[in-house]
Amino acid sequence: MTGSQHKFDIIDVRAGVEADNDRYAALVRQKCREKGIFLVNLMASPGAGKTSVLCRAIDALKDRYSVGVLEADMDADVDSTAVAARGARAVQLHTGTSCHMDGRMTLAGLDAFGNDLPQVVFLENVGNLVCPAEFDVGADLKQMILSVPEGDDKPLKYPLMFTVSECMLVNKIDTAPVFDFDLARCEANLRPLNADMPVFPVSAKTGEGIDAWIAWLIPRIDAKLRGGEEAAK
Amino acid sequence: MTGSQHKFDIIDVRAGVEADNDRYAALVRQKCREKGIFLVNLMASPGAGKTSVLCRAIDALKDRYSVGVLEADMDADVDSTAVAARGARAVQLHTGTSCHMDGRMTLAGLDAFGNDLPQVVFLENVGNLVCPAEFDVGADLKQMILSVPEGDDKPLKYPLMFTVSECMLVNKIDTAPVFDFDLARCEANLRPLNADMPVFPVSAKTGEGIDAWIAWLIPRIDAKLRGGEEAAK
Repeated sequence: MTGSQHKFDIIDVRAGVEADNDRYAALVRQKCREKGIFLVNLMASPGAGKTSVLCRAIDALKDRYSVGVLEADMDADVDSTAVAARGARAVQLHTGTSCHMDGRMTLAGLDAFGNDLPQVVFLENVGNLVCPAEFDVGADLKQMILSVPEGDDKPLKYPLMFTVSECMLVNKIDTAPVFDFDLARCEANLRPLNADMPVFPVSAKTGEGIDAWIAWLIPRIDAKLRGGEEAAK
Repeated sequence: MTGSQHKFDIIDVRAGVEADNDRYAALVRQKCREKGIFLVNLMASPGAGKTSVLCRAIDALKDRYSVGVLEADMDADVDSTAVAARGARAVQLHTGTSCHMDGRMTLAGLDAFGNDLPQVVFLENVGNLVCPAEFDVGADLKQMILSVPEGDDKPLKYPLMFTVSECMLVNKIDTAPVFDFDLARCEANLRPLNADMPVFPVSAKTGEGIDAWIAWLIPRIDAKLRGGEEAAK
């Protein structure tokens, strides 16, 4: 926390035995249901813009919901500093050499919020298009980001991520003229894996396209939070 | 191999027990020493430009050495098609759900070349800045690529990769004006982890900077191959 004006917790969540993952993911779902939390598992390559997208999402959601962020990083806290500055409650998870978040680490992260639980929690997974796709963390939404510079062929190369995700942002769309990126070709590569996932071209830098994604997200959050209230009655 | 005019082998190398990794990495080193192979472990994020850099390297090296490529992908062969078209012998390794190459898979890949062993073999690892850094594959050179759109803060986020690598390319340097990427800031983040690693800004797209990297690489290849010849006497 040295040098930061913004307070956030840092906890160690190095990977243990993964056989119990489904059990922990179920505990995460139970906690989110009972406490009224909408949990988003945000997955992308390194440098695809997870943190920048998060900052835009916090701006768009924070007047409507309390927003928290679980920042998974091998050993850093730059992202927690960034999102805390933006007005979200941040918990930094140090994953050590683990290349993904699992159910156990996610539950530990939620527990770190104590009794002051946010209504919307974004889990910023480790930057990786492979391993995070394999681990259920008990989220309400598996949200992925592909960025334009990575190329429109990525569904062919990392099929599991594009198969399990439920919503896809194509970030850095403002740089499309610089790269040979064709959104139609990207979708043609995507659809055999995932016929229905909505795709939103966005630029976290300019803000382009963020509104459309947020407009899609809000009814899903509201439905979950309403369900939680009704279950509590 | 459907639809491809270029022949390459596809073998399944799904991860087994990893406890034996060091033993397999030693077998890779032994084979490379005995047969006169310079093995490069090429690591980077998805979309950083591994295949494009490889195509440039093949162009620059193929009149001087026989060049082979081991293409590690979860379940695709687009890269093998690309490098085979460029004149390198390619072996496609399907890693299944594994997020990295290990010693055993690498040995299986070298064995797939049969008796017609290339002098220089590039192992294009799975696109991932985390897991490949943890697995010794017995290479002569751990070569990493960071691409400009990923950002100059990546050494802070994925420290192990930047620590274990022995040479770094900063690819897509032609797009630096589009992104807020500062090479000096990147090096400032890198140097506490790796004081001596040479850093070459390059553009696989335009060819800029590739010559400087190749000029650094050739004496290292020659030294290894000379050593192999002397050992064989």
